[in-house]
Amino acid sequence: MKKTTVNHGFQVPGFTAAGIYCGIKTNKRKDLALIFSEEPSIAAGVFTANKVVSPTVTWCQKMLNGSKKFRAIVVNSGNANACNGRKGMENCKLVASRLSQELSINPSEILIASTGIIGVPLPSKKIINALPTLSSKLSSTGWAQSAEAIMTTDLVAKSKSLSFKIGKHKITLGGIAKGSGMIHPDMATMLAFIVTDATIGKKALNHALKETSDQTFNRITVDGGTSTNDMALIFANGKAKNVSIQVGSSAYKKFVSKLTELCLDLAHKIVLDGEGATKFVTIRVQGAKAKTHAHCIALSVATSPLVKTALFGQDPNWGRIIAAVGYAGVPVNPDKVKIFLNGFLLFKNGEPTRGAPQSVLRKKMTNKNIVIIIELNSGRYSDVVYTCDLSYDYVRINAEYNT
Amino acid sequence: MKKTTVNHGFQVPGFTAAGIYCGIKTNKRKDLALIFSEEPSIAAGVFTANKVVSPTVTWCQKMLNGSKKFRAIVVNSGNANACNGRKGMENCKLVASRLSQELSINPSEILIASTGIIGVPLPSKKIINALPTLSSKLSSTGWAQSAEAIMTTDLVAKSKSLSFKIGKHKITLGGIAKGSGMIHPDMATMLAFIVTDATIGKKALNHALKETSDQTFNRITVDGGTSTNDMALIFANGKAKNVSIQVGSSAYKKFVSKLTELCLDLAHKIVLDGEGATKFVTIRVQGAKAKTHAHCIALSVATSPLVKTALFGQDPNWGRIIAAVGYAGVPVNPDKVKIFLNGFLLFKNGEPTRGAPQSVLRKKMTNKNIVIIIELNSGRYSDVVYTCDLSYDYVRINAEYNT
Repeated sequence: MKKTTVNHGFQVPGFTAAGIYCGIKTNKRKDLALIFSEEPSIAAGVFTANKVVSPTVTWCQKMLNGSKKFRAIVVNSGNANACNGRKGMENCKLVASRLSQELSINPSEILIASTGIIGVPLPSKKIINALPTLSSKLSSTGWAQSAEAIMTTDLVAKSKSLSFKIGKHKITLGGIAKGSGMIHPDMATMLAFIVTDATIGKKALNHALKETSDQTFNRITVDGGTSTNDMALIFANGKAKNVSIQVGSSAYKKFVSKLTELCLDLAHKIVLDGEGATKFVTIRVQGAKAKTHAHCIALSVATSPLVKTALFGQDPNWGRIIAAVGYAGVPVNPDKVKIFLNGFLLFKNGEPTRGAPQSVLRKKMTNKNIVIIIELNSGRYSDVVYTCDLSYDYVRINAEYNT
Repeated sequence: MKKTTVNHGFQVPGFTAAGIYCGIKTNKRKDLALIFSEEPSIAAGVFTANKVVSPTVTWCQKMLNGSKKFRAIVVNSGNANACNGRKGMENCKLVASRLSQELSINPSEILIASTGIIGVPLPSKKIINALPTLSSKLSSTGWAQSAEAIMTTDLVAKSKSLSFKIGKHKITLGGIAKGSGMIHPDMATMLAFIVTDATIGKKALNHALKETSDQTFNRITVDGGTSTNDMALIFANGKAKNVSIQVGSSAYKKFVSKLTELCLDLAHKIVLDGEGATKFVTIRVQGAKAKTHAHCIALSVATSPLVKTALFGQDPNWGRIIAAVGYAGVPVNPDKVKIFLNGFLLFKNGEPTRGAPQSVLRKKMTNKNIVIIIELNSGRYSDVVYTCDLSYDYVRINAEYNT
């Protein structure tokens, strides 16, 4: 299921990136990334819904509320800088201060992210000592290195770029992300950093990121957990010189649709690389009385360990699906429900159909892509959630990943 | 972790039980149980919160609302008789009708339960053909056989009995249960059948079972799922000739405390025999502003795959615990939270303590019994949830258990 080579060879005008090993990870893999905006950018962010947050989240939220322009994002992996008491924020300040000197910018123009183990003091000295090397490696083609440097249990680096036109102006969007376990709506153990050369209003950029995240990063789940550190950040430097995009315009719609395409690609890559994942599962609930009903049911199915182990076992077990529909906590009339599994109608009128022979069905279940459609026949709302299966490897990875 | 021999050798005056193989299970294990009350009993039940229910649930709810006295509970394993359309209820009626002839009682005096695969038509002929043999095996010492006959992926049969006095009258309580995967509050894939010779009012019996279930069966979770078939039923035949127990009396309190003891024992046995379980985990949340806060947090920790795989890996990973506390969806002040793991304080003032050397801690984690205490320091409410760890075997059992 894992790709071993991915093309991260994109460039976005006015942005550089770098990724190096600074000594945090025990396996000597890259663990420190920097994204740099040659000119001041506006920025927006969305953050974890967890009540226990890393000071990196607090730092970013404060800066996004206070500062107008931004120049850099520094990210370390291997240590979450979470649950470390006051030391956590002190380390944020220290890293920002030293990096600001290194880059000749203001600390308030720097956003910070961390991912990795919780409750182990951040080895900020290692980060600080590495800042000169890190800065010296900044390059317009450095995205592959930065994508690598934000990985934890990820098996592949994740990035995506695309270009489109607004009027006569070519706009480029580029992004990197990390995910793996603890992926759940409202920002789970995931980080995403996106840059664009579009000219866009601050309000429009904020709206666009929130709207887009809601349809992409907030529609994926690996194991139902959300972490202390999750965020998606976007920088826009205006180099494309298009007429500034404002909320509600046709340019805004186009920008949102392209940003959605990019974020959905990153979100799918996160699910595909879910810990131990062997299947990419799309769960679409339609015909619901309310959007929230569709969402709750899709999530209930997507987080059911019984459904997920059945998918790993390549078993067309619609019984576990209907059981998860039933305990989603929203009203359901089972007699109206239809369940489709990779195109086959398996359940309707309160009982299984005799539609497809088991041999054909089982063959279909060997597909890497599994699509579950749940038609409630009770209204006009729908929702979709993406997830993966639950395998031996999920248990292995998480039983062995030590504190 | 599994006991191979358990003493099920109890008797409750006026009740008989039997368990046989009737041909539903492919492995030729016992799959049909009968509990019989020689004299009319009063009865009460609590049922699954799943919106998709087996007609056995509907049948029992209807009878408990309509009938005054009950004589028998018939239970099959290997087939849930759920999601089979109209045929499901027809099969309930058929089985009750034939059993009523066999036992010379009224069909409305019979309660029915099923557990096993969803969506496969109940082989009611096999059940009906076996009823004469089943009835002939009824015996006051038949509880071991009946406990065996209600098992699905359970590895051990579960039963418990105890006696106590109300005034000068000796009262006996006896019960059998089955559990395994899909165990979650509000009745999950579990069945429990309890009998007593106590004399008790119908209202008091109802209250007692609800109150007790809430503290026992509704406090356990294996994998967050609740099924279509779950129920706990209790019969009371009055043979003990005590003064009838009424709600609020001291006799009632004693009865509830003893029933709680019995149900808690059965609930713990269900968790201990959770699919693939190697640990019995008690999660106590205290110092909460509201009972629901304590409950949500305990459940969030108990259902976190990351916490459960860490426990399987014998890793004292308090970081995953505090993360699950944070995403429970209720207000939490992380700086006030203390986390104790098997007696060691691992987290306070927003950071890890340096209380115990890793070697000592890791040794503690090899215990079969794990106790997690989460002190919120925000109020006076507490709650407790029991669960197990998440192991390779959970995945194996549920990936291989085919539809």
